[in-house]
Amino acid sequence: MTSEREAGQLVRELLQGSAKAAARLITLVEEGDPECQNLMREIYPHTGSAYVVGFTGPPGVGKSTLVGKVAKFLVRQGMEVGIVAVDPSSPFSGGAFLGDRIRMTEEVGREEGVFIRSLGSRGKMGGLSRATFEVVRILDALKKPFIFIETVGAGQDEVEIIKLVDTSIVVLSPGSGDEIQALKAGMMEIGDLFVLNKSDREGAERVALTLEAALEWGGQPDKWKPSVIKTIAIQEKGIDDLWEEVGVHRRYLTSQGLLETRRKQRIQTEILRIIEEELGRYLRNSFNSKAGFEKEVEKAMQGKKDPYTCARDLLSSFLPPL
Amino acid sequence: MTSEREAGQLVRELLQGSAKAAARLITLVEEGDPECQNLMREIYPHTGSAYVVGFTGPPGVGKSTLVGKVAKFLVRQGMEVGIVAVDPSSPFSGGAFLGDRIRMTEEVGREEGVFIRSLGSRGKMGGLSRATFEVVRILDALKKPFIFIETVGAGQDEVEIIKLVDTSIVVLSPGSGDEIQALKAGMMEIGDLFVLNKSDREGAERVALTLEAALEWGGQPDKWKPSVIKTIAIQEKGIDDLWEEVGVHRRYLTSQGLLETRRKQRIQTEILRIIEEELGRYLRNSFNSKAGFEKEVEKAMQGKKDPYTCARDLLSSFLPPL
Repeated sequence: MTSEREAGQLVRELLQGSAKAAARLITLVEEGDPECQNLMREIYPHTGSAYVVGFTGPPGVGKSTLVGKVAKFLVRQGMEVGIVAVDPSSPFSGGAFLGDRIRMTEEVGREEGVFIRSLGSRGKMGGLSRATFEVVRILDALKKPFIFIETVGAGQDEVEIIKLVDTSIVVLSPGSGDEIQALKAGMMEIGDLFVLNKSDREGAERVALTLEAALEWGGQPDKWKPSVIKTIAIQEKGIDDLWEEVGVHRRYLTSQGLLETRRKQRIQTEILRIIEEELGRYLRNSFNSKAGFEKEVEKAMQGKKDPYTCARDLLSSFLPPL
Repeated sequence: MTSEREAGQLVRELLQGSAKAAARLITLVEEGDPECQNLMREIYPHTGSAYVVGFTGPPGVGKSTLVGKVAKFLVRQGMEVGIVAVDPSSPFSGGAFLGDRIRMTEEVGREEGVFIRSLGSRGKMGGLSRATFEVVRILDALKKPFIFIETVGAGQDEVEIIKLVDTSIVVLSPGSGDEIQALKAGMMEIGDLFVLNKSDREGAERVALTLEAALEWGGQPDKWKPSVIKTIAIQEKGIDDLWEEVGVHRRYLTSQGLLETRRKQRIQTEILRIIEEELGRYLRNSFNSKAGFEKEVEKAMQGKKDPYTCARDLLSSFLPPL
C-alpha cells in the first residue's frame, strides 16, 4: 500500500525519466495497489508516443533471444527500448525457456536505455492484458519510443494483447511443426509479420514456402500482406531486415489511418476491461452485503435451482432493463 | 446453432447414457451455442454425484500418462471415468506433450466406460474455467462416478479450476527442478496430494524429501496433510497407492463436511462467473446502442480524459449507488 504522496512523487520521477520509479510503479500495478488507478490517471496524459511491437510464438523458437537482439540493434542506433516479457505459464514457468529469457535480460539489460520487465499472470488483479497495457503506459510515459511485448501466445489474454499492439510479429522456427499449429490456431490472422528464426536449420526453406503460400492464399489485394523474414537471432542475422519490415508496416498503418484505428480499439478494450472489473468488484461487494446471493447459492446447492437461473435472478434484481 | 428441439433431444439421450450426445453437447459448450444456458439448466438437476479429481503440473512430468493409467485402473475395477484435458496453451499447443496426450487418448479411450475430451482455450466464450465446469456437469449427468481434469496449471483460469475440484493432485517429476518452482509458485497450497512421477529417475529420493519437508513445515495439526506418492505411470507402478490416497482424502473431506464447502465454493464461483459474463454482454449491448461509450473513447483518444475516468463515468451513469 502506497500513500498518495509517495505515488505522486513516483509519477514525477517517472516523467523525469527515472527507470527506478518505473520499476516501482510496475510493481504497484502487479500488486494491484489501490493507488494504481490514480497513478494511471496521472500518467495517461503523458503517453501515446511509443510504438508497440508484439512478439509471439511457441516456446523454444528463440523469442527472447530475438527480442534481445532487436533491442540491441536499436540501442546501437541510439534508440531506447522498453521490453515487457509476459509469462503466463507461471506458476510453472517452464524452466528451460526461462533460462533464455534470463540470458537475454542479462545481456540486453546492461545496455544503456533498455528497460526490461517480466510479468507473470499469477495473482494479477484484472488479468494479464490489463496489467500489460498498464506497464506499456508506464514505459510510454518513461518516453521509450519503442516498446516490445513478448508472449508465448498461450492464453486468451495474450491473444488479446497481441491483437492490440501496433505491429505484431509471430515467431516460428523450422522443424517443430509449428507452422502447421500456427495455421490451425488462427495465428496467421494475428501476425502482421512472420519471422522464421533459426533459419539455418534443416527444413527452413520448406517452412518459409508453406508460410508464404498460406499468406498468399488468404490475402486480399488492398490489404496488408505479411511477409516472412528469416533470422538467426543468436548470430544477429536478419535483425536489420526484420526491423526494416516493421518500419514498412508502420508506414502502412500510418498512411491508411490504421494506427488510429488500432489505438482506438486498444482504448475501447481498456475501458471495457476496467468497467468489467469495477463491476465485478461492485457485484461482489453488493452480494456480500446482501443475503440474496447466499440464498441463491443455497438453492443451487440443494438442486432446487441451477446456477444460470440464480445468476439471471440476481442480475435482474438490480439492473435496469436494457 | 441448435434448435431448442434438437437440444432437448440431446439432453434426453445424455441422461440415458449416450456418450455421443455428451460429445455433441460439449461441442455446443465449446462453440458458445446460444442454447447452452438452457441445456445446462436442464442438465443441472441430474448432476452432483460425480467425484472430481484434478491433475496439474508442469509439462513433461507425465500427467497424461498418469491420468490414463489411473483411469485404466478404475475401469478394471468396473468403474467409469470421464476425463477433461484442459489445454490452455493453444493456439500453440506444445507439440511434444500433446503427443503423450494423444497416446493416452488412444490407449485409454478404447477402454469401455471411459470418456475423454480435450478443451482448448481459444475462442472460448466466458473463459476456460466456465467451459470446464460445464463439461464436468455434462459428464456428471452422463453418470460417470469419477471425473478427472488434467491441466498444466498455467493460467489463472486453471488455478481456479484446480482450486475447486474435490481432490487436487499436483504432479511433479525428479530432475527438472520443478519442486522448487512448485514451492515458489504457491502450488503447495493448491495440492491435496503430490505425485512424484518417473520416480525411478535419479534424484527422486531427494525431491521427495524436499517436498515432504516443505509440506511438514507449513502443516497445522488439525489440517489435511498432503502426502507425497511415488509413481512410475508408464509401468503402472504406484497407481494403486495413489488411488488409495485419493480415497483417504475423500473420506477426510466428507467426515469434516469439507466436500460440501468445496462444492459450495464451486457454485458461488459459477454464479459469479455467469453474472460477470452476462453483465459484460449487457454492457457491450448497452454501450453499443448508446453514443455515450463512443464519446468517452473519443475523449480518451484525444488525451482529454484517461480510460479510468471514462470507465468510472460510464459506470456511474447507469448503476445504482452501492
